[in-house]
Amino acid sequence: MTDITMIRAASVRLSGHARRTPLLSSPFLDEIAGRRVFIKPECLQHTGSFKYRGARSAISALDPDLRAHGVIAYSSGNHAQGVALAASEFGVPSVIIMPADAPRMKIDNTRALGAEVVLYDRAGEDRDAIGARIGTERRLTLIKPYDDPQVIAGQGTTGLEIAEDAAALGIETADVLACCGGGGLTSGIALALEADAPGLRARPCEPEGFDDAARSLSEGRILRNAQTATGLCDAIVTPQPGEITFPIMHRLCGPGLVVSDDEALHAMALAFSRLKLVAEPGGAVALAAALFRPDEIEGDAVICTISGGNVDADVFQTALGRFT
Amino acid sequence: MTDITMIRAASVRLSGHARRTPLLSSPFLDEIAGRRVFIKPECLQHTGSFKYRGARSAISALDPDLRAHGVIAYSSGNHAQGVALAASEFGVPSVIIMPADAPRMKIDNTRALGAEVVLYDRAGEDRDAIGARIGTERRLTLIKPYDDPQVIAGQGTTGLEIAEDAAALGIETADVLACCGGGGLTSGIALALEADAPGLRARPCEPEGFDDAARSLSEGRILRNAQTATGLCDAIVTPQPGEITFPIMHRLCGPGLVVSDDEALHAMALAFSRLKLVAEPGGAVALAAALFRPDEIEGDAVICTISGGNVDADVFQTALGRFT
Repeated sequence: MTDITMIRAASVRLSGHARRTPLLSSPFLDEIAGRRVFIKPECLQHTGSFKYRGARSAISALDPDLRAHGVIAYSSGNHAQGVALAASEFGVPSVIIMPADAPRMKIDNTRALGAEVVLYDRAGEDRDAIGARIGTERRLTLIKPYDDPQVIAGQGTTGLEIAEDAAALGIETADVLACCGGGGLTSGIALALEADAPGLRARPCEPEGFDDAARSLSEGRILRNAQTATGLCDAIVTPQPGEITFPIMHRLCGPGLVVSDDEALHAMALAFSRLKLVAEPGGAVALAAALFRPDEIEGDAVICTISGGNVDADVFQTALGRFT
Repeated sequence: MTDITMIRAASVRLSGHARRTPLLSSPFLDEIAGRRVFIKPECLQHTGSFKYRGARSAISALDPDLRAHGVIAYSSGNHAQGVALAASEFGVPSVIIMPADAPRMKIDNTRALGAEVVLYDRAGEDRDAIGARIGTERRLTLIKPYDDPQVIAGQGTTGLEIAEDAAALGIETADVLACCGGGGLTSGIALALEADAPGLRARPCEPEGFDDAARSLSEGRILRNAQTATGLCDAIVTPQPGEITFPIMHRLCGPGLVVSDDEALHAMALAFSRLKLVAEPGGAVALAAALFRPDEIEGDAVICTISGGNVDADVFQTALGRFT
């Protein structure tokens, strides 16, 4: 189980590698939200999302002899790119199992970052069987996207930075809104805040229809999403909270916040015009909650992550076309 | 005349106010350029451009009794917003003289940042006469956009940060490409590099047809642009280099670089996909030069500014539509 000591150790291992992202703000966003809004732009992280932190944390924590064989991951998106880059930095091979119908751009990017991409047919092939066979043959270590203590520790470094910057700004109490899929980022931030900024409270943010974390927190047990599709906010949609992440979230997090796809697109357009940042739909749900759920948030300041910016141009243009 | 002592003093006055922007990079951009590319994203600065640095520097350097009367500026764009915000922070009035046909968004933003906007008719009214009358009546201090020693000192703080970050990256020699209008940013960076990173060389970057700085440097005297229109890269187009900025550039800068409007749009699209940043056309010319003028650049690394991100959605969509 991840604890603050592991997060601090991950921070040391990530130092000089992960980007130290700032807290940004805009008076125009403050006015919409009715309180001060601070944004942690992990879209500026290497590979365009916070996932690099967890991937580098996990790979850097491996026994060097084991790591030398390489790593393997299942991902069609941000985790794939984070693992590919971190493995390349260590000079070890990475194999990413991706669906053959994943966006060409994401496949190309993952390859360009140094990974061997193995494509499978979602309809006719068993992803886990393919991965298990390759992983066993080559003695590769599986890097899970969120339910891994060292991955959570890596994502938790985001929370250490938020705590430090909030203290510098004089913010002692605030909700910290995290874009939430499996809960790696949310639970990591929650652990970091517990230690370094106990007046700050992590809260998961999700898109409507994929609010498994919010419902699970409300019920006190892990619940699944009804649908298996992924939708607009695909980067942060998982079937259910993780077995490791959920108990952490349940102990430490405030209630989940849920926004519509339209609100996520609107937040993307505001990140464009007011922050000069590119957010992907899933990466914009926390900003959307900060802006459009003021009555569900406490305090005179709110901090929110933009968890990633890997969005296709046509989706981005849709957001601009509708909300600027 | 601005010198390094004034830049260091401006840095002290800006501390805790201007954002300390990072140096960003992407392996995909390195591959296009054929060398390592580092980006100084001043689009993330307050008000969306580096202009806030110079405005805050100049206003903070005023005698408090004089400052209390307020400030005035002529601008249809980024300088207007920088002056408006900096004046608001000091609690003093600002008057911005803007053409009545300026984009509604920029007028609204300038007002929202606390300025009194006075509109004039470009065809029928004399901007300078209006400004002189209001300025004299109210005892306002004129804040020029670039030909002011304290404005140059403020822009020069960008160069101090570049020097510090380049040293941390082990970069001892490199061209530093600055988006250049009147030359405030370019000359300020050049002075800072002369003092703190003498192996780094500032070079102005401009759009085709508005290459007054490049031609002036080449000829050794101030030359004007042939046309008075502003074009796509309006934010960085001025009739000619400044009387104060040009001698500094002439003494310290390498040759100017010139890119086409299409190359600026292409660089905007790459900033979107590879850096998750919103650049305006004029703000993208230095990145365009870094990527598309490799034979005119020396060294195995290049540093370039993205000077601003205040772009209308339709122009941004044009860039994405054509180059993604």
